[in-house]
Amino acid sequence: MKIITRKEIESVLCIPSVLEAIERGFVAYSLGEAVIPPVAALHFDAPRGDCHIKYGYAKSGRHYVIKIASGFYDNDQLGLPSNHGLMLLFDKQTGAPVCGLLDEGFLTDIRTAAAGSIAAKYLAPKNVECVGIIGTGAQALYQLKWLTFATTCRKAIIWGRDREKAKKLTLHPELWEWKLEVVPSIDQLAEQCHLIVTATSSSSPLLFAHQIQSGTHITAVGADDQGKQELDPKLFEKADCVVVDSRSQCAAFGDTAYALQQGLIRSEKLIELGELLAKPSLGRISDNQITLCDLTGVAIQDLQIAESIYNKIF
Amino acid sequence: MKIITRKEIESVLCIPSVLEAIERGFVAYSLGEAVIPPVAALHFDAPRGDCHIKYGYAKSGRHYVIKIASGFYDNDQLGLPSNHGLMLLFDKQTGAPVCGLLDEGFLTDIRTAAAGSIAAKYLAPKNVECVGIIGTGAQALYQLKWLTFATTCRKAIIWGRDREKAKKLTLHPELWEWKLEVVPSIDQLAEQCHLIVTATSSSSPLLFAHQIQSGTHITAVGADDQGKQELDPKLFEKADCVVVDSRSQCAAFGDTAYALQQGLIRSEKLIELGELLAKPSLGRISDNQITLCDLTGVAIQDLQIAESIYNKIF
Repeated sequence: MKIITRKEIESVLCIPSVLEAIERGFVAYSLGEAVIPPVAALHFDAPRGDCHIKYGYAKSGRHYVIKIASGFYDNDQLGLPSNHGLMLLFDKQTGAPVCGLLDEGFLTDIRTAAAGSIAAKYLAPKNVECVGIIGTGAQALYQLKWLTFATTCRKAIIWGRDREKAKKLTLHPELWEWKLEVVPSIDQLAEQCHLIVTATSSSSPLLFAHQIQSGTHITAVGADDQGKQELDPKLFEKADCVVVDSRSQCAAFGDTAYALQQGLIRSEKLIELGELLAKPSLGRISDNQITLCDLTGVAIQDLQIAESIYNKIF
Repeated sequence: MKIITRKEIESVLCIPSVLEAIERGFVAYSLGEAVIPPVAALHFDAPRGDCHIKYGYAKSGRHYVIKIASGFYDNDQLGLPSNHGLMLLFDKQTGAPVCGLLDEGFLTDIRTAAAGSIAAKYLAPKNVECVGIIGTGAQALYQLKWLTFATTCRKAIIWGRDREKAKKLTLHPELWEWKLEVVPSIDQLAEQCHLIVTATSSSSPLLFAHQIQSGTHITAVGADDQGKQELDPKLFEKADCVVVDSRSQCAAFGDTAYALQQGLIRSEKLIELGELLAKPSLGRISDNQITLCDLTGVAIQDLQIAESIYNKIF
């Protein structure tokens, strides 16, 4: 079994190749060419945390992937990152372990950022003058970094519960391309931005239907488990087009699940991201529409990113 | 993250300590002191195979475990072992990976053998003159090897679909303590043995109620997934005492599930192995009874064995 460290991963990472691989993965997934069982999860109370195991394979592929990613939200107080993780590739012909990618959660962070970037590329209105980011953690950073592949806009405003963390994020060296500011309220953020990304571990809605102006695209990446929620369910009723990474996962948990439960959107109205990529006309058809993309994170992304790194190195 | 190889595991393995740790684990599990969600599984068609992910933690423990074990049943033809696997320990306070045990499936094999040995120790009748093993794979080997910790009997007979493999097993150097013979039929095996272990990947019953004489204990370890079955469901009706490693898992798949579905046993009659260990009088009360133990493999075993190896090395 080969081992790849985070340092090696970072040294071979090619963002455009990853974006292509993830797009191909979403299309294959939505065409039914992948086997992705329901997410397995562990929950912890003291300290509070969760661990998700995502796993599966493409029917025509060489490997199956098992990805482990945890979020322990009090790690901050210990000076540790909240997220940890690793990915494992196994031979689909024999079951033998092929490669352990000891990425410390980095690959999960960037495959999520890749999905956000892809969603924005296909769904954001033509002219975005300011990007709004709700959240101040690692995912807020990566979303901004990868959005430079989806929009030419380089102005963004950030809102976070912790204003100090928000300020710190605006100074992050990896965001040198961006002109960044902190805003004191989500109201102000929604007023100024036509491309909004929510990237928090919130358990109640932060962004409300009444705040959203026409011609806005929202990508929500935070609510990846039972009990997590970032969006007012009424946003699903208000949106002209709702895209989800996985119809089955989004029906089971996260923002879409709340909207479905409350009858604010019908399951038939949901478009899978892979369907959108295969047929972009399913998405935004005018700059005045409101579009919404709910991302819960699908094992096909993990498979694609792990294989793309593995193939670069071996 | 520390890495332990199979060779290192083999060099520190202490069977009595493992047996103790696994017994303690079963008791904690049955007392509700562990969090063990349902097994996650992947299935493969060409070639046929399966991969199980078992995961969980003891509420009072330091780690959570994620164990991956695969069975690819045509590997034989490639000269490869059928089973592969590895175990991962994570810090329950932060989610950080602590240790990867690259055991190649060895720890899964022996924690299963440990459970078989424990079942026999508590449930077999006093005087066993001959042990019967149905199956000729790695698990048949390990069951026999670990049964020396549960019975003083050292005579066993083996039945397998592949007689050549059965003969080969009788010559295995690790079984030097045993006087071994191959029998041509399960009828003959059941006639001669009061302690029988089934360890196959069969998808239909091999051992039938009418074959079993009074005063026999049967441990079934093979049917660990949907569609696998080793025992005639009527055996559950005939048995005086039925023990399962996990009530929830055994209701979901394997031999007990078939018997429950057919109404041949009621769920209330099932005793968990951990309950039996805490109160042995729940088990066999006379040498004439028929007892049955269905083992599907529980993550608490993986946690206990991984921690016991980790603690020996670090």
